This record gives sequence, C-alpha cells and structure tokens, in this order.
Amino acid sequence: MTSLSPTIQLACDLINRPSVTPLDADCQAMMMARLEKIGFKCQSLRFDDVDNFWAVHGDSGPIFCFAGHTDVVPTGPEANWQTQPFNAVIQDGMLRGRGAADMKGSLAAMITACENFVSAHPNHSGRIAFLITSDEEGPAINGTVKVVEWLEQQNEKITWCLVGEPSSTDSVGDVIKNGRRGSLGAVMTVRGVQGHVAYPHLAQNPIHLAAPALAALAAEVWDEGNDFFPATSFQISNINGGTGATNVIPGELQVIFNFRFSTELTADILKSRTQAILDKHGLDTSIEWNLSGQPFLTSEGPLVEAAQTAIKAVTGTDTILSTAGGTSDGRFIAPTGAQVVELGPVNATIHKVDECVKAEDLDKLSLMYEGMLKALLS
Amino acid sequence: MTSLSPTIQLACDLINRPSVTPLDADCQAMMMARLEKIGFKCQSLRFDDVDNFWAVHGDSGPIFCFAGHTDVVPTGPEANWQTQPFNAVIQDGMLRGRGAADMKGSLAAMITACENFVSAHPNHSGRIAFLITSDEEGPAINGTVKVVEWLEQQNEKITWCLVGEPSSTDSVGDVIKNGRRGSLGAVMTVRGVQGHVAYPHLAQNPIHLAAPALAALAAEVWDEGNDFFPATSFQISNINGGTGATNVIPGELQVIFNFRFSTELTADILKSRTQAILDKHGLDTSIEWNLSGQPFLTSEGPLVEAAQTAIKAVTGTDTILSTAGGTSDGRFIAPTGAQVVELGPVNATIHKVDECVKAEDLDKLSLMYEGMLKALLS
Repeated sequence: MTSLSPTIQLACDLINRPSVTPLDADCQAMMMARLEKIGFKCQSLRFDDVDNFWAVHGDSGPIFCFAGHTDVVPTGPEANWQTQPFNAVIQDGMLRGRGAADMKGSLAAMITACENFVSAHPNHSGRIAFLITSDEEGPAINGTVKVVEWLEQQNEKITWCLVGEPSSTDSVGDVIKNGRRGSLGAVMTVRGVQGHVAYPHLAQNPIHLAAPALAALAAEVWDEGNDFFPATSFQISNINGGTGATNVIPGELQVIFNFRFSTELTADILKSRTQAILDKHGLDTSIEWNLSGQPFLTSEGPLVEAAQTAIKAVTGTDTILSTAGGTSDGRFIAPTGAQVVELGPVNATIHKVDECVKAEDLDKLSLMYEGMLKALLS
Repeated sequence: MTSLSPTIQLACDLINRPSVTPLDADCQAMMMARLEKIGFKCQSLRFDDVDNFWAVHGDSGPIFCFAGHTDVVPTGPEANWQTQPFNAVIQDGMLRGRGAADMKGSLAAMITACENFVSAHPNHSGRIAFLITSDEEGPAINGTVKVVEWLEQQNEKITWCLVGEPSSTDSVGDVIKNGRRGSLGAVMTVRGVQGHVAYPHLAQNPIHLAAPALAALAAEVWDEGNDFFPATSFQISNINGGTGATNVIPGELQVIFNFRFSTELTADILKSRTQAILDKHGLDTSIEWNLSGQPFLTSEGPLVEAAQTAIKAVTGTDTILSTAGGTSDGRFIAPTGAQVVELGPVNATIHKVDECVKAEDLDKLSLMYEGMLKALLS
C-alpha cells in the first residue's frame, strides 16, 4: 500500500479504526490533529457517550460547514466479508472496508480539500467549519442535535452546509441531495366495546369501525408534491386487533402508520387532516405522534450552484438534484436556516457486507469539495 | 333430604357423580338401569374416551327422542362455591350443584316423565328413545355426531327430538329454542408485496388493499333474517399485519372472521358472496373456511305444538320460540331431518359457580316432558 494519495491514505487510516456507533475510536482526534495543523480551532463536544467536535478556520463571515460522522454500522458476521472490515485494502481499484462509502471516504476528502484550499488561500473570506459526530447511525440524540443546540447558545449560524453522505448512484457526483422528505409517525388506538361474536349488538367492533376510515386515509391525496418532492405518502406499517379467540370481538385495534411528506405540507396540517378523516368516520381514537424529521429543501442559491459547478469541473457531468431516500443529519441543520446539500460517494454498498468505494472517486470528491470552497470562500 | 320427589331425588343422585367432560362417572349406567326397569332396550356406545348410549321403548313407528348429556363443565376453584359442587343440596327451594341446570335436572325429568308415561300408556304408539352423550361440553367429536352416524347405519331416523338444554330465561318453559343460527368461520390471508415505507411505489401494502374490502364486508347486508332468525351477522375477530418495524410495509395481512347465519342463507352462498366482494376489490387472498354448524329451524308442526301445549298446561303461560344463543348438539340431529326443540330449566347460572335451579321446576319439567309424550305418542 505505497504511494496512495493523501485522501485515500487518510480514508484507510480512518477505516482501520473500528468505530461502531457510538464509538469514535479516536477518528476525531486524528481529524482534529490534521485540521489544527492548518490553523483550525477545534473543540471536542462529548455528550453522554457520544464524541463530537466543532472546528473553525477564519474569524468572521459566512460559515461553510462540512458535516459528517465517524461512526459506522456494525459489520454483521465478519466471516461473510471477503476482506477484514476494519483493515482497509485496495483491490482492483476498489477501497474496501466498513465506512469506505458511509462515510470515512468523505471525511478524508473533506480534510484534504481543506488542506489544499487553505494552503492556496490562507486569507480566504468567511469561515470553514466541521461538525462531526459519532452517533449518526444510532439514536441521533447526543450527536448533531446537541451540537446544533450548542451552536445556537454561541450565536453561531451555519450559512452553507455540505453533508458528506453517499449521495451518488452510479458515479461520484451524479446525484446530490438538496433536501429530504419529512417523516411523521403515529401509533393509533381505535376503541370499541369487546363482546361475543354471537351477540354483536352488545359489542362495537373496532376493526369494523376503523376499516372505512383506514380506506379513506389510504386513498387520500395529501398533496401533489412539487418540483423537488414526490407526493406525500401515507403507509400503515402495522395493524393488530383481536384476542386470538375466534368468537370474541376485540375491544381495541392498534394501527401504526407513517407519513413521508413534502415541503407542501407541515406535520400540523397532516395531524389535523388525519383527525378530520377519523372524526368524519366517528372513530374514538387516541394517537401518539412522533415527528422524526421535518422536510427540508435547498432548491437554489449559491450552495447548490457551487456543488453543480464543482462537480461539472471534475467529472464533466450535470448532477441531478434529488430529495429521495431516508433521513440524514441534514434534517437537524436545515431548520437553523442553513442551506444544506449532501454530496458523497456511490451508495451501492452502504450498510452491506463488503462495503467499498472506487478509490479514485475519493480523490475526485476532494476536488469537488475544494471547488465548492473556492466558489464560496475565495 | 327426606321426601324428595322422584325427579329431584334422581337429579341429586346424578349431580353427586363428578362427571366432568369427558367423564360420565356412571351416570349413564344409573339412567339405563331405570329405563331397562320399564322396558327400554339400552345400548352403550363408547367412542374413544366418550360414553354414550341409545335406548328405545316400543317396536315401531315414529321416534320421540330425548337428547342430552351427562357431562358437566369444570367447577373452577371449589373454594368459590357456597356449597360443594358435587354434593347436591336444597337451600331455600334451590337445588344446588354442578349440572343442576345444565343438564342433570333435565335428565332426571326425562326419566321420570317416561316412567309415568309408560306406566299409564304401556302400549303407546311409536317409540320413545334416549340419545345421551358425555362430551357435549367438550370437543363434540365422539358424542352425538358418532351416535347419529351409528343410527344412520341402523337405518333409524329420529322423528321428533327434545333436547334438554336449559332454554328458559326467567321461569321454566318461558322460552324454548326451535332452531339455532349457523356458524361459519374463516382465516383469510391477504397478499401484498413487502417493502420500505419510504419507497411505497416498490411495495403493495396489503393493509391498504384490504381496508376497503373489509369495510364493504362489514357494511354488507347479508340477509334480513326471517320470522325466526335475526339478520345474518359478519364479525372480524382478529386482524394482524406488520413486522413490528415502523418503516416496513408488510407482505401479508391475516384476517379472521365469522358468520352467524340464518336459514335464509347457506354456507356456500356466504362463501361465494364473500369471494365476490374480495374479487371486486382485486384482492389476492387465500381463505381457510370452517363450517362449525349449519343453521336449523323447526318452525311449526307437531313437536313445537306439543311443547307449547304441554308448557301451557303446566304453567299457564305461552312459551316464546327463540333461535338465539350459541350452539347445541341439536345442530347434529336436525340435519338428519328430525324436528328439534330445546326445552329445559332456567339458564341463569349455567357454567358459573353456584350453579342451581329451582327444585320444583324439575317437577314441572317432568310434567311438560310427559305432556309432550302424551300429545305425540298416546
């Protein structure tokens, strides 16, 4: 493994540290050492069992923040891997190891991009920052959420945020995420009156009462989506009612459902429209709502433009803007008013055995990140 | 306990034998001894662990059959009883003990009714029979079903059947059952395609697909009932779908439902109408049907008339015809073409602790049974 590029070498060094959530395994110390060497001021922010850090270069002006995580998901049975998950190797041009794509490769690219940019532009405008956590893959309680709260206490605001999540589909930079749908979950209890199947007039069957309301919820057009989001979707994931006995009408029915919603709607609107449909059907229900992510969108502006230009300069291709897929820590940063985009390597192998990434893609990614810094801060 | 009536004395002797299903505890031997003494020919018919017997008096002509069971349901914790469940006592005119109402009191009344009738009409027309089992309260596999099969092999047909089940509500004879609803059960699997809640276009949610069909089944008017039956009812007793995870659309939904149906419909009609509703909604389902009882009705004719007249003669009241409530062994006898009615004591305490019956009601019941024999066979 001689003559690796600085980005690939750093990615290997990070992969070799087994930082399964919430462990950081000193990845952050390694990153901070590199950043301090080029003038960043670094602050460790440990909350409970989660390591985080915040680092800044520059004294004032808009903040361009790299956001990411050093933790990785578990390997599963190591015997199923072709190579050791925490021993980075390059085979046929592929860098293999847990975290290669999600997202230690991106972290390495961020560091080298900054090293190159600061070396060329020691007196750049604005500020460069890092917001790094070690619980993105876990409960997401003591990570980015807490650092964002801490930043608010310091009256610091992120202007542009680049999340290094693996956004790409077939080749690095072909897709960037400029938003995510919101996610609103609910656990609903529908109440009836228990009784004997032979005497239905003495009971109220909550399954019968709920069926037309559930049909109406499933058929409802919540919105039409917009240029950036597909239509809001409603899905029932679990339904359970009954005592097990075949001659007993149950007293309650439990229904668990979830909205993935666009920026055309808010959680409050979804709640009240859901309740209106239930009320129209005369249901006696109680609902526990759980808003696990607001939708966010960075539809246009300097950050998206910088990403598009930087990608085009490196690969010659026009990137696609997408809001598809699950959640990321961007959901915690966007509500502060920051513009947020996600740009990282190809996500085909993330969370799987034999996670890997094209090694040269990390060098390209470093150039894209450096290009964005140039566009926004030089 | 001196100077008890023959009926009450025999009821006590039967109650004192702890014949919890499928045990008979020699109750049937006691009954057969009494019947043989007045000229009945008795035949024990043991199937597996269940004692049954068939007894006949007379050589030819229509058969009036008393049907009943010597087994009783368990006592539950005996400490909860005010008196010993298998030690019959009379307190304040109430005969107390397990089986007093369901249905050892009826068995005693059947025996004494026959004793009195045969004594007064030694050359009665037709035949009197007994079909007695010891598993009515149990699985009902080796009892009345098997005896009915045996009778068919003998080419014997019951013309009129009096089931001694406790049919009465407030006073003995106020209600007789002249039929029962049918019971048709189903376990239905609705198939969809499993997937991620965030990618509903790649899945087919079986809960969403089923909801309108279940609403339609619950809203369907299956029939209007008739003079003797309430409208057929459909009830979902159990519904279960989902992996437990809140972000997974399940691949299958299981729905368990049951029809209680009138003589306006048949099981086959219900099955095809159910399937038509499911097909109309485009559901991919499989259904396991379980027909646990055909509906039966003895709407008019000599048997019902004999019961009405006999009751009126004893208590002066007009009895009510009813088809309400659960199933009885009448469901196995009616399909052979027999007229079937159920007449027995007040059912308020059956299957409960402190089961009891007004002692004098058993003497009245014996007179009613004797009156029916006179009406049909003298």
